[in-house]
Amino acid sequence: MSKLPDVFTDLEDSQLVADAKKDKPEDHEFSYTERDVILYNLGIGATAKDLQWTYEGHEDFAALPTFGVVPQFAASSGISLGWLPNFNPAKLLHGEQYLAIKGPIPTEGNFVNETRLMEVLDKGKAASVTTVVYTKDRGTGSVVFENQVTVFIRGAGGFGGKRSGRGIKVPAESSAGLSEFALDRGAATAANTAPTRPPDAVVEEKTDPSQAALYRLSGDYNPLHIDPSFAAIGGFDQPILHGLCFMGIAGKHVLQSFGPYKDIKVRFSGVVFPGETLITEMWRTGDRVIFSTKTKERGTTVLSAAAVTLVDTDSTKAKL
Amino acid sequence: MSKLPDVFTDLEDSQLVADAKKDKPEDHEFSYTERDVILYNLGIGATAKDLQWTYEGHEDFAALPTFGVVPQFAASSGISLGWLPNFNPAKLLHGEQYLAIKGPIPTEGNFVNETRLMEVLDKGKAASVTTVVYTKDRGTGSVVFENQVTVFIRGAGGFGGKRSGRGIKVPAESSAGLSEFALDRGAATAANTAPTRPPDAVVEEKTDPSQAALYRLSGDYNPLHIDPSFAAIGGFDQPILHGLCFMGIAGKHVLQSFGPYKDIKVRFSGVVFPGETLITEMWRTGDRVIFSTKTKERGTTVLSAAAVTLVDTDSTKAKL
Repeated sequence: MSKLPDVFTDLEDSQLVADAKKDKPEDHEFSYTERDVILYNLGIGATAKDLQWTYEGHEDFAALPTFGVVPQFAASSGISLGWLPNFNPAKLLHGEQYLAIKGPIPTEGNFVNETRLMEVLDKGKAASVTTVVYTKDRGTGSVVFENQVTVFIRGAGGFGGKRSGRGIKVPAESSAGLSEFALDRGAATAANTAPTRPPDAVVEEKTDPSQAALYRLSGDYNPLHIDPSFAAIGGFDQPILHGLCFMGIAGKHVLQSFGPYKDIKVRFSGVVFPGETLITEMWRTGDRVIFSTKTKERGTTVLSAAAVTLVDTDSTKAKL
Repeated sequence: MSKLPDVFTDLEDSQLVADAKKDKPEDHEFSYTERDVILYNLGIGATAKDLQWTYEGHEDFAALPTFGVVPQFAASSGISLGWLPNFNPAKLLHGEQYLAIKGPIPTEGNFVNETRLMEVLDKGKAASVTTVVYTKDRGTGSVVFENQVTVFIRGAGGFGGKRSGRGIKVPAESSAGLSEFALDRGAATAANTAPTRPPDAVVEEKTDPSQAALYRLSGDYNPLHIDPSFAAIGGFDQPILHGLCFMGIAGKHVLQSFGPYKDIKVRFSGVVFPGETLITEMWRTGDRVIFSTKTKERGTTVLSAAAVTLVDTDSTKAKL
């Protein structure tokens, strides 16, 4: 059975970081039903035309692959960061997300999340914190999802930690320390630079003005995404769409264009306002699809350095 | 504590109906959270602009009043009708709905539903069955909602029962037999005929093509509302919107125009296809608002003989 190490020991860590890593978070249970799957799929733009994603009676009824970020959300976002100097949750930004899908996604499940502090970097003005979560099926014990979540906390740097790391890591299957997590494979650690040629596929999708109001029911109730007064505190004219929501929308575009994938990695490089139109440009390179997503209205790139690793490299189109 | 009679005795009933009425359904529990309230509100067209209906952190966060049909849905639709001759659930149509709101609607709750077969009519070609449900707060024991649901089952008539009844009844507060339920008050039993003058208020709202896919997550998973092949069996070119969904949308229009109400009654007189635009026309008459709803695209009346009884007859506009 795959298991996370108790501590991600790193000899370059300062004492502050080393101590924080030893504070092992409690395991976190998460159960869900078909209703939650449909709600998530609708939240990332699936429609009544997509019966395989919105109707539990469809023979191919399934969660969209990025559902894998949902069961771990409370676990990874609940990790204690109060030990960081000048920590202020309002200064936190979601930087990157890596999701590996390690088994079939049940349409209902009882999961347990194991969470560890994986890497902490002192960027001077900011702290960069990467958390790793193994999401396991409580029945079989097997890992269904692995997530690595990187957040930046502005104003929380200057604590004397290491300044640069190796980016998102891919853990080995066995229980291991950090060295075994530095394997470079799949979409996780590559630069994911798009080729210079025109994209192989482009998908455009208008989001709904109430997209965030719906998506938040999948577990991220941060008022930044619905309350204009909270958004103003964060420096935004209006509430912004959840990063994991438009990652899901873009992930749907990749799935529709190239078929199933076993991992996906994105960098959140811009904000999306609910109601804006997203354009995802995709390039197939071997068993991977590199992609980027921008808003049509403002031309802002919102997902970059993004890629998936395809499950079936012999097919270029999913059987949906 | 308000209580339903064990049996709605009616001396005009045939033996078949009298026996069916004696088969007292089991009480049915229903619990819900703020998430379910938001999901329902979104399901009947509330948006991210309606923070009081879509954001649990809003100081006036509330369920829309027609949420009262949700906790009782499984109870009333689960009542056994297999004793009717030639009963076929595919031949069932929702005819009328009456909802009385007897107390403040909690934004989360633990309820229990008491259900009784109230009236069964033999319409010759069809059976008309009215079920009454008291929805009580499990903590306080007080009745929060009363619903009366009338369904027509085509092809299930001819069993020798009484042919006409008194329509939807308003039960007295005390435990009582049928006679005490025949009181004529409020919106329940009136003809609800609109005056000939132009409406006092008109609200138009376009539904979303995925409105039914979202609404069904509030508990009515009948595939008629999402699966084209089931819709075809029912004789429809495409899936149809839930009657209780567009009753909720129209009820929102009345609330926005005239303020809170303590009961609402509608007759379902036409179908709505998700994506169509609804137009609700409203007439204030004393403490009541009579209304009807039609589709803009086809001009079909979909809600008729409809009315609410206002809570506060001194105000003409809700404080929202």
